[in-house]
Amino acid sequence: MGDGASLKSEFVAFKTNRIVEAASRLFYERGYSSCTLDHVAAELGVTKPFLYSYFKNKESILAAICELGIREALTALEQVMAADHASHRDLLAQVVAKVGRIVIHRQEYVVVYQREMKHLSSADSDRILRMRASFDHQIGNLIRDGVNAGEFEADVDPFVSVWIGGLISWIPTWYSRKGQRSAEEVIEHLVQASLRLAGAN
Amino acid sequence: MGDGASLKSEFVAFKTNRIVEAASRLFYERGYSSCTLDHVAAELGVTKPFLYSYFKNKESILAAICELGIREALTALEQVMAADHASHRDLLAQVVAKVGRIVIHRQEYVVVYQREMKHLSSADSDRILRMRASFDHQIGNLIRDGVNAGEFEADVDPFVSVWIGGLISWIPTWYSRKGQRSAEEVIEHLVQASLRLAGAN
Repeated sequence: MGDGASLKSEFVAFKTNRIVEAASRLFYERGYSSCTLDHVAAELGVTKPFLYSYFKNKESILAAICELGIREALTALEQVMAADHASHRDLLAQVVAKVGRIVIHRQEYVVVYQREMKHLSSADSDRILRMRASFDHQIGNLIRDGVNAGEFEADVDPFVSVWIGGLISWIPTWYSRKGQRSAEEVIEHLVQASLRLAGAN
Repeated sequence: MGDGASLKSEFVAFKTNRIVEAASRLFYERGYSSCTLDHVAAELGVTKPFLYSYFKNKESILAAICELGIREALTALEQVMAADHASHRDLLAQVVAKVGRIVIHRQEYVVVYQREMKHLSSADSDRILRMRASFDHQIGNLIRDGVNAGEFEADVDPFVSVWIGGLISWIPTWYSRKGQRSAEEVIEHLVQASLRLAGAN
């Protein structure tokens, strides 16, 4: 770190993030189809050629937005798995809370993904669906292990991971920062609901 | 029934349904913003003035699409509530199964609603959100009654109705008719998951 090369890559990451952030806001507010790269460039006060030096086209910006939430969720899952934990119950509670916080923090990105995924190229769409499937699969394994360890009820099907993924993914649709419930209350409810679904109460 | 007036209103309902059906397919496949009333008219082999005799504008067709699933869900809820039932557990299982089947049957409409709701007028959006809130509220009451009757676990918060609504609403995102699981398997899983969430296992 600190040498020219890493500084340059930090600049690139910074600029890429700023583009993704501005585009996400625009796509969220106006819809992907109604937005052009001219709008994105104007929002950032840059030229269109500047955007093209970071992204091939509008679709590749959309792909970066759509990928962000699930990529962060997978990283969080790996971090929790790698750390010490008292039980599978504890593990599930920690993963769900972390990923729930990501989804609330990245609410706009997740909503853009859910609304606009049909505009992704099939390569991008497949890649993101594989990441989602990997997340569900790992949660499924965690639940299977918890059942085998006698911590979760014996009749719980690991497929319940898809429902837990649904609970998490559904938050951005109804949660509002201006609503009655704080983010942490929502996370607490989410953890309780997920533990119930896993038969880990 | 059978007189001229009711036959006429049947014709109107039939034509309205056909318009909503064709528009839903187009909005689902191409996105609302990319579709014009010309596309809808061409799809049906009718003129644009024909469409205007049934709908004020493109947005009012979208509103009809978005309203359809939740209207059918509320009707199903009322029917189940009005019929005999052995227990609150039974009541919840029946409602969730019925509404789950509606959501699978109306998959395209629900997906269009979730993707395109931001294009609704605020009057239509508010009306549909009130219908959704009424559904969640009635499920919340059912759960409260079940807790008071000692059928559901005492520490279950009626707010869990929002999570159950989430499970149901999430199905169209991941369920595929060509997938590994039949619709009835999905419904069975949905009922089990909802009963777990309500502490009614």
